[in-house]
Amino acid sequence: MSEIREECGIFGIYKQGADDSYCAAMTYTGLMALQHRGQEACGIAVNNNRELSFYKGMGLVDRVFNDERINKLRGQMAIGHVMYSADGGSHSANAQPLALNYAKGSLAIAHNGSIINADELRREYEQNGAIYQTTSDVEVIAYTIARHRIAAGSIEKAVAEAMHKLKGVYSLILISPRKMVAARDPIGLRPLCIGRKADGAIVFASETCALDVVGAAFERDIEPGEIVCVEDGVVSSNRDMCGQKSHLCVFEHVYFARPDSVIEGQLVNDARRISGALLAQSAPVDADVVIGVPDSGIPAALGYAEESGVQYVEGFGKNRYAGRTFIRPDQISREEAVRLKLNPIRRYVEGKRVVMVDDSIVRGTTMGIIVNFLRNAGAKEVHLRISSPPFLHPCYYGTNVTSVDQLIFSEHTLEEVCSILGADSLAFLRFEDLHKIAPDYRSGFCEACFTGEYPIK
Amino acid sequence: MSEIREECGIFGIYKQGADDSYCAAMTYTGLMALQHRGQEACGIAVNNNRELSFYKGMGLVDRVFNDERINKLRGQMAIGHVMYSADGGSHSANAQPLALNYAKGSLAIAHNGSIINADELRREYEQNGAIYQTTSDVEVIAYTIARHRIAAGSIEKAVAEAMHKLKGVYSLILISPRKMVAARDPIGLRPLCIGRKADGAIVFASETCALDVVGAAFERDIEPGEIVCVEDGVVSSNRDMCGQKSHLCVFEHVYFARPDSVIEGQLVNDARRISGALLAQSAPVDADVVIGVPDSGIPAALGYAEESGVQYVEGFGKNRYAGRTFIRPDQISREEAVRLKLNPIRRYVEGKRVVMVDDSIVRGTTMGIIVNFLRNAGAKEVHLRISSPPFLHPCYYGTNVTSVDQLIFSEHTLEEVCSILGADSLAFLRFEDLHKIAPDYRSGFCEACFTGEYPIK
Amino acid sequence: MSEIREECGIFGIYKQGADDSYCAAMTYTGLMALQHRGQEACGIAVNNNRELSFYKGMGLVDRVFNDERINKLRGQMAIGHVMYSADGGSHSANAQPLALNYAKGSLAIAHNGSIINADELRREYEQNGAIYQTTSDVEVIAYTIARHRIAAGSIEKAVAEAMHKLKGVYSLILISPRKMVAARDPIGLRPLCIGRKADGAIVFASETCALDVVGAAFERDIEPGEIVCVEDGVVSSNRDMCGQKSHLCVFEHVYFARPDSVIEGQLVNDARRISGALLAQSAPVDADVVIGVPDSGIPAALGYAEESGVQYVEGFGKNRYAGRTFIRPDQISREEAVRLKLNPIRRYVEGKRVVMVDDSIVRGTTMGIIVNFLRNAGAKEVHLRISSPPFLHPCYYGTNVTSVDQLIFSEHTLEEVCSILGADSLAFLRFEDLHKIAPDYRSGFCEACFTGEYPIK
Amino acid sequence: MSEIREECGIFGIYKQGADDSYCAAMTYTGLMALQHRGQEACGIAVNNNRELSFYKGMGLVDRVFNDERINKLRGQMAIGHVMYSADGGSHSANAQPLALNYAKGSLAIAHNGSIINADELRREYEQNGAIYQTTSDVEVIAYTIARHRIAAGSIEKAVAEAMHKLKGVYSLILISPRKMVAARDPIGLRPLCIGRKADGAIVFASETCALDVVGAAFERDIEPGEIVCVEDGVVSSNRDMCGQKSHLCVFEHVYFARPDSVIEGQLVNDARRISGALLAQSAPVDADVVIGVPDSGIPAALGYAEESGVQYVEGFGKNRYAGRTFIRPDQISREEAVRLKLNPIRRYVEGKRVVMVDDSIVRGTTMGIIVNFLRNAGAKEVHLRISSPPFLHPCYYGTNVTSVDQLIFSEHTLEEVCSILGADSLAFLRFEDLHKIAPDYRSGFCEACFTGEYPIK
Repeated sequence: MSEIREECGIFGIYKQGADDSYCAAMTYTGLMALQHRGQEACGIAVNNNRELSFYKGMGLVDRVFNDERINKLRGQMAIGHVMYSADGGSHSANAQPLALNYAKGSLAIAHNGSIINADELRREYEQNGAIYQTTSDVEVIAYTIARHRIAAGSIEKAVAEAMHKLKGVYSLILISPRKMVAARDPIGLRPLCIGRKADGAIVFASETCALDVVGAAFERDIEPGEIVCVEDGVVSSNRDMCGQKSHLCVFEHVYFARPDSVIEGQLVNDARRISGALLAQSAPVDADVVIGVPDSGIPAALGYAEESGVQYVEGFGKNRYAGRTFIRPDQISREEAVRLKLNPIRRYVEGKRVVMVDDSIVRGTTMGIIVNFLRNAGAKEVHLRISSPPFLHPCYYGTNVTSVDQLIFSEHTLEEVCSILGADSLAFLRFEDLHKIAPDYRSGFCEACFTGEYPIK
Repeated sequence: MSEIREECGIFGIYKQGADDSYCAAMTYTGLMALQHRGQEACGIAVNNNRELSFYKGMGLVDRVFNDERINKLRGQMAIGHVMYSADGGSHSANAQPLALNYAKGSLAIAHNGSIINADELRREYEQNGAIYQTTSDVEVIAYTIARHRIAAGSIEKAVAEAMHKLKGVYSLILISPRKMVAARDPIGLRPLCIGRKADGAIVFASETCALDVVGAAFERDIEPGEIVCVEDGVVSSNRDMCGQKSHLCVFEHVYFARPDSVIEGQLVNDARRISGALLAQSAPVDADVVIGVPDSGIPAALGYAEESGVQYVEGFGKNRYAGRTFIRPDQISREEAVRLKLNPIRRYVEGKRVVMVDDSIVRGTTMGIIVNFLRNAGAKEVHLRISSPPFLHPCYYGTNVTSVDQLIFSEHTLEEVCSILGADSLAFLRFEDLHKIAPDYRSGFCEACFTGEYPIK
Repeated sequence: MSEIREECGIFGIYKQGADDSYCAAMTYTGLMALQHRGQEACGIAVNNNRELSFYKGMGLVDRVFNDERINKLRGQMAIGHVMYSADGGSHSANAQPLALNYAKGSLAIAHNGSIINADELRREYEQNGAIYQTTSDVEVIAYTIARHRIAAGSIEKAVAEAMHKLKGVYSLILISPRKMVAARDPIGLRPLCIGRKADGAIVFASETCALDVVGAAFERDIEPGEIVCVEDGVVSSNRDMCGQKSHLCVFEHVYFARPDSVIEGQLVNDARRISGALLAQSAPVDADVVIGVPDSGIPAALGYAEESGVQYVEGFGKNRYAGRTFIRPDQISREEAVRLKLNPIRRYVEGKRVVMVDDSIVRGTTMGIIVNFLRNAGAKEVHLRISSPPFLHPCYYGTNVTSVDQLIFSEHTLEEVCSILGADSLAFLRFEDLHKIAPDYRSGFCEACFTGEYPIK
Repeated sequence: MSEIREECGIFGIYKQGADDSYCAAMTYTGLMALQHRGQEACGIAVNNNRELSFYKGMGLVDRVFNDERINKLRGQMAIGHVMYSADGGSHSANAQPLALNYAKGSLAIAHNGSIINADELRREYEQNGAIYQTTSDVEVIAYTIARHRIAAGSIEKAVAEAMHKLKGVYSLILISPRKMVAARDPIGLRPLCIGRKADGAIVFASETCALDVVGAAFERDIEPGEIVCVEDGVVSSNRDMCGQKSHLCVFEHVYFARPDSVIEGQLVNDARRISGALLAQSAPVDADVVIGVPDSGIPAALGYAEESGVQYVEGFGKNRYAGRTFIRPDQISREEAVRLKLNPIRRYVEGKRVVMVDDSIVRGTTMGIIVNFLRNAGAKEVHLRISSPPFLHPCYYGTNVTSVDQLIFSEHTLEEVCSILGADSLAFLRFEDLHKIAPDYRSGFCEACFTGEYPIK
């Protein structure tokens, strides 16, 4: 039910010598596990004896792909991509991976992030005659790598040179005729990890849950600034760009990532539990029950309940068939559509003082509807507890919250918001508690949405 | 992940004087809320000034219907149906509602249940020249009602006479040219309830969650044996067949129904919590964590944890995009497919003594895979706790478990099953505790699957 | 471009012992050849060891069926149906074959025609409890056969008894568990023929062109009133109902049938050529060129040219991609849609006195547009010659022209019509010449649409 | 039934000030008329107040587009493309128009032809960092124009400079933010014409039949080498590159173009008639009937009959539902598939000496099957007359006959071919008669497929 959305998930697998659709099938499985990171378009590219082939389409992974399409994608390397938003001129022009041919053969790239100086680079290349068939940053990345590759001795060197030129956040995986290369921007804003299957296949993924489903053992997170290259089955690393202060997007823990993923050593589900416990400490309230807004609010609510001793109840019936891609027919009101997804259980809230935990407030429209549901179901009091600090500034690093207009806090004080939402009280995770949700993580989070201090630019 | 499946959900709405697609849109919404009762086919029929029209198709409600199709379905009465299995000759021949014309005009019927003497009746009618275009019991119901209607003075009387002839379990809703009729078999095996919207619309549904999503206030359950008729906006009841001992299917509480539904006065989620608590009492175990198999095992696990004091943790990452209708590609193994849906969280089980709560064991194949996942994730001990008694006998009342071959307990003892599943211990809800999961429910459950004592025939 | 439409085509094949999809594949091929008789829905039913299976859908044969669907239809008997109009309650409820189970097992029926006393029979059966799931006459036929079959000793006897009861026109093919039966109404209004393949397979079809495409040699037309039964590979005939005066629909020759079909001994293309020649004799005109309206007007135009000595030219460019099922987008006018299908060639008509030959005038709307096209292309004179007599009375025997409102001649004289269409002259095939288009055909045509004398009722 | 295929058709319309979907709807209509030039993919691009939008897809025009999609394409300029073959990496990567952004804004290009030095240019641009997302020549054209546009003062100047660089054959239409530009290669191998609607809209199309269907009056053919630019509703021309000897592809007259199109002053249908008449003169034969292989063989057969005095008959029943895109199911043999499309009429050939006229012989497989059909239908003699000279050399200018392996004449003499095809005699249009099929056309044809003398390279 959250109003902020992650834009992409990426996956790659290298299984030396494979000449069937094994890699494509594993990529399909990995993308299924990353589907929460993007539901509007997806694609898989493979390299089969230096010949690139791919398939992309609009929709969920298991709609776009079937046996027939997977079976046609053969070779020892595959990469895949799921995407939230495929805007741009055509129905699928912006879908990834971007597959292309250039001076040194073929290339396919899957990218998660946002290039801050994309417009600048686009203009620079245009002066050399570049043409753009998408509006996606990945095309700018592709040009940058392709241009450097002409002089650079190898694709991995070209990637290194390109990274000096690209400002922004990105986790990317690419396949050249003979190699697979994965890289993460120097501040490590988006996650990327590497694992290995018992059969020797090397796997890259946005989240560890995708390693799990393909049966790969987690090895480690790719380091911020690191470039990993797989060639002839051998993995090598270039860490020349490592060592900057890193800034993992805190919303990966708060909302984006799957609870069973481990990012930079922290289990996401635990991060959410801890945030709930911290809320119970900093913003306690005399209440009868704690409920969580599914799905990301549930572990935080459990943490709140555990810490506060207030009883946790499952406050909502959830419709698992009315997902993010559910299209509301004309005749159905916005309220009815929300209730289709989230039906408050009267018996658990009637006559009760209710603490409701959710991950964030951006515009707040849906939350206002839900609070109203609880009132109508007889809740005596509704206390909102939000497992992240107030969202005050737009995000330019690959989410959908790119404008200050989308933020209720740009126009209203905390008291006003509490009143607009119809709640009895409203409290947020304290900014100073933020680092505690991942206690062993030594680096800093990107907290720009809370502070306005952007780590890049 | 359960291996037993409910076959159908039904919905009906009567809004006097409506001549647009309001009723169809509400039925769409109601069917969305009942989608968990059947995902393979669905349909909506309306009566517009005595003219019947309908649309049916294979697939989920939001795939089969769109604005255009709903807008064509106009009139003051609508009924809808979701179905698990549409077997039979054609791609959608068995989908419901069944719409037909007969001596007294048109009729559309939606049915949830199973007619035990269907073959016998079928043969009887055949001798009078009946032809069957489906293999569904609803066609037999239709013939029975149609035949009695010729002499009976009204459709509701015809339904009453038909009910004397039909042996079996059924909840049904039908629309005649002027009336809507809802009925429930005398033992009340399948649920059916009635509610009312603020605008006066009268609503029938398999579960209260469907009343909630259309904004209808729950009025009451239809009584076992009751026939409700809506004519000119007035609701009347025939209770001549009421008064038998009723036998609600206990699996509605254990697994079929949505946790936010209230059946015969009992909130389903609470029934599950209680069953977990009862398990903690009757089959305690020295353990570190309690986990539940999503979705129906979760409230039972919470109940177990609460009662036992053992910590509840969310043991699995769940993929909400790999639903029941997910088709596993050839190249993906059964294990990989299960892991796509259910990924154990290593940090919560590694080195731990784990209690895992699930709703039932039929064949047990998937559960064996899950136990194995837990072992591979480092669980020291795995104790299975099942929130219903052992499933020993087939069900003939509208589920998919119709043969003794499907039951692991038909061939193995409890000890053998425990060993086959790879668990350290295995315990079930005690049969004598069963009635406690709905403490205020005065009638008996159908417990045939546990006892072999079938309430009908 | 014609305004009258045939409603159906039927096909059947019996290949003793076949247990694969051979019969279904041949039926697919046969239906492709009969596609001109109906484009809105189609279906195939097979009987495999007494088990009926079928597939039906909306759309053209090669859209509804594919390898996968054909491969599932196995057995030694198959029947198929193409249909022009699938009206009625649902998207495909009225599609054929109608597949059913009844007292004596399964039955599938494909029917081309119209039952005049259908309403009367429907009411009679309703009094015995019949229910109707379609609005199609074939369901009435099915009930009639099923009822008689209970007492009759065999399916073919039941068909014979049913034929005494059914008033109307029909060609039908059915499959029972062991037999295939084909029958034609006693006046033989719709065509039906039988052929045989070198491998022994017996084939029935509406037109001989369907025999040709499956490689079957034409044996003979089924006689009006004849019932043919195939059992254990042996063909037998019941001719008890033969011998009435027959009345083949003359529009089969004029427009409906494919030019390469032979009906009652007459090649359709020749019938059309002759009608053109007869027009040249009875309604000559001083002209420069003769053109035909594709497709059925072409052979008549060639015949006119040959007889008159006026030069034949191909007056229109035709778009073979804008077929009958082409849906005109909103923004495209009716004139533009006609021109998409039929583009007059200016060089052939500019400054010329043009004779344009077409098959019939019903409402005349399209013809008025075409005449206007010719004027705009510079034709000096436009003389319309119609290869059938004036259409004065509705047809109740299975076409779409069922109402007098559809007929321009119901409101206007010949002179008025000529003026409305913008032609310089207008002449029709003389009624007394009609029998000459099939010179060897000894029986009479149904000429009700010209005379109002209906052979039935 | 021909074995050679044209690759593309293009269309463009400029209607000053239009801000609705008028231009897109007209383009839809025009593409419908050009559908015979390509059935596998199609697309439309519009420019709406300098903002480019487009939609492309696989399949026929009336499948890819519907009202909804057309209505979204708004603006005063639209171009469209139909394509025979969309090979390359993805399902629709190579579909056109190619839409792009570059230094000077947006550009969409639709192209019909083949760039001979594409590989060379591709390599040149790659050294400057170009990346290629398709395997289509249009991307090379786009780069060439984009690169020159950076320095050139206008898009039309950039096109002119690009044309100096591009070697090959091309007719192309493009839209820039403010202008529409159409150009034809200096030897004018592919056709392109311009017309004007009464409402002032300016229309470009591959063939005049597309002007006709949108109601545009033909103005003239674009000259070989000419660049036409429309700006602010004013049409201007750059003829600097005009004046070379032109070489229209003779197969446009023989087979590719629609019979109602006029190319370089010659009506295509007449060109075919004349070729038939010439064959009657140069290769007469004592025969009973002349038949033509639909569709392109028909006018040639009529011409042959007229000239020789031998009777013309319509020798084949044709299935207009089994078009080029018809996919033959596995169970149907190649012969059956051919017969589905073309059913010889026995009565017209049995016992007859038959002259059969077709447009060309490439591999000859289908023709062999057809000759065999005629034999089986009882033809006493079969004399093949081909309305073009023997096809001896591959075509590199935008057809599918790109390899000598596809040509039966590469391996066999005329006598051998006659024998392989099973004919009694075989004769071709004499090479020296070729120019006579378009008597008023002063320039030369491209005759490379007959002579091996390629006008370019």
